[in-house]
Formats: sequence, C-alpha cells, structure tokens
Amino acid sequence: MAYDAIETPFGKRDRIIGGSAVYVAYAASNFIKPINLISIIGNDFSDAEIEALEARGADMEGVERVPDKKSFFWSGKYHLDMNSRDTLVTDLNVLGDFNPSVPDHYQGSEFMMLGNLSPAVQIQVIEQMKTRPHLIAMDTMNFWMESAMDDLKRVLGMVDILLVNDSEARQLSGEFSILKAAKKIMQMGPKFLVIKKGEHGALLFHENEVFFAPALPLEDVFDTTGAGDTFAGGFMGHLAKTKDISFENMKTAIIVGSALASFCVEKFGPERLKEISHRDIQDRIQQFIQLVNFDFSLV
Amino acid sequence: MAYDAIETPFGKRDRIIGGSAVYVAYAASNFIKPINLISIIGNDFSDAEIEALEARGADMEGVERVPDKKSFFWSGKYHLDMNSRDTLVTDLNVLGDFNPSVPDHYQGSEFMMLGNLSPAVQIQVIEQMKTRPHLIAMDTMNFWMESAMDDLKRVLGMVDILLVNDSEARQLSGEFSILKAAKKIMQMGPKFLVIKKGEHGALLFHENEVFFAPALPLEDVFDTTGAGDTFAGGFMGHLAKTKDISFENMKTAIIVGSALASFCVEKFGPERLKEISHRDIQDRIQQFIQLVNFDFSLV
Repeated sequence: MAYDAIETPFGKRDRIIGGSAVYVAYAASNFIKPINLISIIGNDFSDAEIEALEARGADMEGVERVPDKKSFFWSGKYHLDMNSRDTLVTDLNVLGDFNPSVPDHYQGSEFMMLGNLSPAVQIQVIEQMKTRPHLIAMDTMNFWMESAMDDLKRVLGMVDILLVNDSEARQLSGEFSILKAAKKIMQMGPKFLVIKKGEHGALLFHENEVFFAPALPLEDVFDTTGAGDTFAGGFMGHLAKTKDISFENMKTAIIVGSALASFCVEKFGPERLKEISHRDIQDRIQQFIQLVNFDFSLV
Repeated sequence: MAYDAIETPFGKRDRIIGGSAVYVAYAASNFIKPINLISIIGNDFSDAEIEALEARGADMEGVERVPDKKSFFWSGKYHLDMNSRDTLVTDLNVLGDFNPSVPDHYQGSEFMMLGNLSPAVQIQVIEQMKTRPHLIAMDTMNFWMESAMDDLKRVLGMVDILLVNDSEARQLSGEFSILKAAKKIMQMGPKFLVIKKGEHGALLFHENEVFFAPALPLEDVFDTTGAGDTFAGGFMGHLAKTKDISFENMKTAIIVGSALASFCVEKFGPERLKEISHRDIQDRIQQFIQLVNFDFSLV
C-alpha cells in the first residue's frame, strides 16, 4: 500500500493511493469477500481510504500502521505510448522495515496473492500459513532478479502461479522466445505461468497448454499504473469465487482479469476501479467475448 | 516479385526470391487457383522459380519480363527481436518502369490483392478491370504516406479492405490510439481494415465491430520477411475459396492468414511456404483455436 505521484501525457496526480494490495483488493472484491490484506502503511495514510477499502470487504488487521514514518512513495512519468515509464522517486519509508505478520484469523485463507515485494518477505508470509493455501500466486520484477535471485528461486519453488510481464519473463529465463521462456520458468517451480504483455494481452501457460487473451482495444489509455495488479486481482478474485483451479477456469480468470485491467487504465490510479459495478464488468466481459469469438465451423 | 538478401540473428541468405506477389501466391494457392499475378521481373529471375510458382497455380501472363534489366532487389538486416529491421539496399531496377497491364483473361477476377507499391500503380490496375472485382484489398506503407498521399487517398477510396501494420495505421490517421486510428482510416474509404501487429496478432475492424486474433507463440522466429504478405495471401485465399465476404467469415480469414504467416517465419523467405501441406495448415489452425478457445459459460 502506497502513495503514488503519476504524470501521464493526459494529466497528473501529485498524490493518489496505490500499491499492489490496493489494486488487488479493489479488483478482487468484485468477486469475493473478505480480502485479507497484509501490508504496512505510515502516519500519512488517509483514514478515508482505509474506510473505503473496508467498505469493499478488505480486512485491515494485517496492515501494520507505523506512527512515526511515512508510507511507501513512488513517483513516475509515462511516455506517450504508456508502455514505458520513468521512475522519478522511490521512497521506501515504512517498507524498509516491513516484517509481515499474518493475523490468526487469516489462517485458512485458500487463495494467496503475493504482490511484488522482496522474495524474502514473500517467503515469510507463505511460511506463516499453518495450512498451505489451495493456490499461491506471486508477482515479481527485474529488480529482484538482479538483487535477490537465490531467494527468488526459493519462493518460485513454493508457489503455484507466477505472473510477470514479457520482459521480466525473458530476464528470468534468459530466453528471448516467450515460449522457451515459459518452459524454463515452469521448470523453476510454478505449475502455471501468466505472461502479461500490457496492451498486447496476456498468455497463460500450463504444461504443454497455452491460452492467449487480448487486451481490449481502448480509445483512450489514461494511466496504466496498477493495471498489472488489477489484472491479478480480477484473476485471483474469479478463481477464489469459483474455487476451480482447472486450466479451463484459469482461462476464464484471465479474461476476467483483462476486463478489470481495462477499467483500471481509464482513469488515474484506482479511481475507475472504485466506480465500476457488476453490470459494468459483465458488459466488458461480453466485449471480450465479441472481440475473440469466431465460428470454428467456418475454418 | 523480387530478390532479397536477408540477414537475421539466425543466419543469412544472399539471394532468395521474394516480393509481395510471391508470398501472396504461395499462401493463397493453398485455397484457390489460378492466382493471376501481375508483376515485373528482370533477366536474372530464375526459370525454376517461375516454374515452381506455375506448379502452384500461378498464372504468369501478367508478369512482364524485361530482358535488359535486373529484378527489384532488397537487402535487410533484422535485429534480435525480429520486429525491427534495417534496410541496407533497395535497387528498384525493373520496378522503376513498372507499367502494369492486366491480361484479357484476368478480366472477371473476383478477388484482387494490391501489394505494397505506389498508389498510382495500384490505381492503374484497378482501372483496367472492366468489371470491378467483388473484393479489393490493398497494402501500403509509410513511404507512400510521405511521398504520394494524394494518390494514396484516391486508391483508399477505391478499395474494400486496407491491410497495414500498427505504426502505418498510426501514421496514416495521425492517431496514436489504434481504435481511433481505425475509425479515421475507415472514413477514408475502406469498409474493412486489418491492422497487423506482428507477433502481437492482428485486428479486424468493420463499422463498430472489432475482432482480434493473436499470432501463434513460436519457439523460434527465424525470418519475418514476407510474413505480412503471407498473412494477406492466406486471408484473401480463404475469402476467394469461400466467396463469403461477411464480417464473420473475415474473422476466419484472419485466423487462416495468421496460420499461414506462422509458417512463413519458420524458415528464410518463402522456403517454408513451399513445403507445407493442407494437413499442416489444418493442424496449425487447430492450434489457433486451442490458443483462444475458452468456455464462455464459465465467465
């Protein structure tokens, strides 16, 4: 959980809440409650934002509030294509001392999503669970491949699904071909792999199977901050709601995640995610079906 | 029709046949015969290559052979990602005087594909047809947008389908958003628009409808030369075979074109296209269906 300052070609926000946990919670809360958050915030974190998350079914007991420090802060500026961005500021603040503690009543949680943090912290959370969750998914990034590869390999061996973008998959595997990269990464532990390609969609891999879902073509992409986490939240939310972790249902979860991510980019930060209704989500999923649906019998 | 010298990270060929017409003919000949070619070649064009094309059902009467000049020659070098390439040499040779003449027995052709040449030449071919073909598709490129925009706008008003890549669509429309670009381009004339995104798939637009088909993820992409023309050949070949130009059947044609293009990139130039069988094509189309197929009822 964080504060972000975001500048895109279409405008800017000096201070808006963000962080993986916030996006995952907003997205997943459309499908399942409660969302048991584990994070750390500082004395600057808005009570109104906490209440808004609680109103969406987020449990805050696992969120530590540090009275004499500030929340993690990130500032970035996007280029015109919205696929690349420059990080201007990264203030770790409270995150430097993050030592997550899983509340007792979170025990028994069946679906766990580990946001992009140090692999050591991700391991700490997994190891505190007395019963292994039914499904553990994780995100990571290039930074941990360069600075904590041993820990990263260890956590990869403990999870079921890795969600990364295409450049991260290439760096992690040392393979340029996405298909070869996927095979290597699944040998590192995760039985399922999701490779996110932003506006170019997402691929789901499992054993020898591959599924592809496009991103919805949008007239305006306003701010892509949090889109990957929103995708993960929709993906895990659908799986947690249906309690079905078959490859077939994971395909559906990819579509649901893509639909949620397509809302995220329409406004700054999580603003759009706070507004959307179940009806909005259903309508957008129908648009996805239209986008890819064709009559096999004509082929 | 041309000779190409191609260098990729995986090898090189100093001299291999190429040109839009060659790729379109090899791809389309899997679905329909004859393929009435219109092109110009020089004294260096191999008889064996002509015979190989004729064996595939290509009619060569519309191909002018210039005795005292050489064929068009292009030389390029690809970067590791195979999405970008540097042109090293462009020798127009015979193409500088190309003044296409449509043979009498080509009259009545129902499906016309205009490869990427000067819009003035494309117009010349359309205007020689006594009966307008059932469907006219065209390709173009950035060069003509910069050097012959008036002619390009004129030919856009005469065709049914434009096939371009994403950067060309952006340049032609002046819009960064692919969706906005598509709307503007369809206002210029073509009722259908195909935007090719290479390894990221292709989009088909018509009125307010959009269809997306991914590219097949491949372990090795060897040489992308001619992949766009191969896509166009498969697309038009399927339409010509089925004689159905509904949006629904065009979706299928996009899948067929993508399948053909996925073969093209597996070897240098048109080498792989010369080898593949109907069975190979059917198998690959099944892979496409697997790649995008999901159970709508689970959503």
